Amino acid sequence: MAEIIRPTLVIDKEICLRNIERMAQKAKDYNVRFRPHFKTHQSKEIGSWFRLFGVESITVSSVLMAEYFARYGWDDITIAFPVNILEITSINRLAANIKLNVLVENKEAAKVLSEKINYPLGVYLKIDTGANRTGIELSKTGTINSIIEILLKNKKLSFKGFLAHNGQTYSANSTNEIFSRHFDALLKLKSLKQRFSATFPNIEVSIGDTPSSTLCTNFTGVDELRPGNFVFYDLMQKNLGVCSFDDIAIRMVCPVVAKHASRNEVVIYGGAIHLSQESLINIDGKRFFGRIIISKNGKKKLLNERNYVSRLSQEHGIIKVSQKNFSHFKIGDLVDIVPIHSCLTANLARKYLTTEGEEISMINT
Amino acid sequence: MAEIIRPTLVIDKEICLRNIERMAQKAKDYNVRFRPHFKTHQSKEIGSWFRLFGVESITVSSVLMAEYFARYGWDDITIAFPVNILEITSINRLAANIKLNVLVENKEAAKVLSEKINYPLGVYLKIDTGANRTGIELSKTGTINSIIEILLKNKKLSFKGFLAHNGQTYSANSTNEIFSRHFDALLKLKSLKQRFSATFPNIEVSIGDTPSSTLCTNFTGVDELRPGNFVFYDLMQKNLGVCSFDDIAIRMVCPVVAKHASRNEVVIYGGAIHLSQESLINIDGKRFFGRIIISKNGKKKLLNERNYVSRLSQEHGIIKVSQKNFSHFKIGDLVDIVPIHSCLTANLARKYLTTEGEEISMINT
Repeated sequence: MAEIIRPTLVIDKEICLRNIERMAQKAKDYNVRFRPHFKTHQSKEIGSWFRLFGVESITVSSVLMAEYFARYGWDDITIAFPVNILEITSINRLAANIKLNVLVENKEAAKVLSEKINYPLGVYLKIDTGANRTGIELSKTGTINSIIEILLKNKKLSFKGFLAHNGQTYSANSTNEIFSRHFDALLKLKSLKQRFSATFPNIEVSIGDTPSSTLCTNFTGVDELRPGNFVFYDLMQKNLGVCSFDDIAIRMVCPVVAKHASRNEVVIYGGAIHLSQESLINIDGKRFFGRIIISKNGKKKLLNERNYVSRLSQEHGIIKVSQKNFSHFKIGDLVDIVPIHSCLTANLARKYLTTEGEEISMINT
Repeated sequence: MAEIIRPTLVIDKEICLRNIERMAQKAKDYNVRFRPHFKTHQSKEIGSWFRLFGVESITVSSVLMAEYFARYGWDDITIAFPVNILEITSINRLAANIKLNVLVENKEAAKVLSEKINYPLGVYLKIDTGANRTGIELSKTGTINSIIEILLKNKKLSFKGFLAHNGQTYSANSTNEIFSRHFDALLKLKSLKQRFSATFPNIEVSIGDTPSSTLCTNFTGVDELRPGNFVFYDLMQKNLGVCSFDDIAIRMVCPVVAKHASRNEVVIYGGAIHLSQESLINIDGKRFFGRIIISKNGKKKLLNERNYVSRLSQEHGIIKVSQKNFSHFKIGDLVDIVPIHSCLTANLARKYLTTEGEEISMINT
């Protein structure tokens, strides 16, 4: 393994492959297309691991990411973000070369596509099933009809169906609530599909947040699953009851640079520009930015929730340590930080090191 | 000006130059060395703007940043971060080529330096004046003595003095409190300097958080000033009463991709990976991630505090808009987001565009 001397995002390839295999198998079992979201890892190498499990279609969250993965042979890509009409030239260029889908949720964007798209382009209507982030509210069938009408004016555009990100599962208070929110979204999307399937017999429903994709077992009416985070999982998913610690495939490995016994604090080289400021609340009601794994007698040991990254500045991280663990930290040691939100941590890292010592690149590295 | 089609960090060079000039002049007026912190901008081009005002010595927060700026001709650099002994090889390589200073706050690191440094290296003791992040507590004169003793064993090492980051000014509730916290830190450092100046007549005191460097007018006993954020300033500084809006030199320019009238929300392409998750609380007690400038009749207009970035996901930003402003946002418009913490936003952007249309690179771009 390459020598780690500064904050390094280490990925356990075996866990990662297992996570991919499991989700690919689940999609197969439920007879839905698996279109994993690549925004979590943003890496051509990790992308290639998905090929091992038969994945051929992917999801990304930006035109830039679509361009990157298209360069590495991915030719069936959905950009799961409300189409940004300022990028129409890039979208046309991509559509000329690969099977591309975009999301539309308003007439303005539909008009621009209808007027300016010169190559075959799939269009999903983005539906808001309750996350209240983006998407058309279900009741607005008038808007849906108008948008479809505008799209149909351009023969290059094909209306593919309804796409939702049921992000409301992330604020669930229990796994039961994840089940019920998922089911509620399913019902809504099913009724929408039914309403339009007389006119458009081939339309699809696409969903795929990691919590419901991992836990739920009812995918009636669903044609496509687009989870992304599951490739690494993280503390947020663990906290939601979606994964176990053993499923989390990444750690930010950080050097210990200082210790302050008077406040049981350890300072690491590893801050907001390495971990991101995503946080959770621990059992004592304290905000934290990661959990801690130390090496003890050559073995990795996860410390309990009362040992945590308590503060971040640009390059510094402060670890609060329980009294009995303080002596286990030595200046020059490496500690593993389990991240709260793997997508944001990976985006900051810009590259990975596998536990086998392989360096893995990302977009823009 | 280059056409902006996706989130772009735009820098107003004129404001930036004015911020640099003002701080350089202030250091001159108070007869202290100006050693600006380059962690905020991380850019060789912006670095070169400092040369116009006579700056020759700089501060950085990592060995990587020191290496980057050394490549572009900076030969007097302080790495203002507790020395990471795992990077000793890189530190030796740098020390062989430039005038380098590092910070030490424990005997372990001092020992490694004493045993392994082969080139002239300046060492500051990092002192905690009340920020409780890093540094030796003032009362621990025993520790200070032991560290100095260890350092003196290696003739290549020179003990330069005491360095503090009085970050406690950032949690001040008023500008008066910034003044008093700064003064308190000054007193502590002055007494420390006096205690050691009999033995080490040339030792220095180095400080330099942006709040006190900007506002305060008493720098008795201070030899060096190291502010960084002032080059751009941001909403956090504005909130502290440190700068005005007109002093903030950067904005994240983002396309509008969706609007939701039922909740007065506008969706922009611009999320946590563009702005960072640093937040503040507005007058209504709501957490926000940036303020909004729109273009109206060709003029830029800052909207009041009740219009703000209210939520971020990886690529999405949600802007809460007051009823009367909602109609000013159109799909495909560009809006300017004033960032909360310019250091973190710049770090994510990886490059800048000036208002004159010049593209500016950063470390790792």
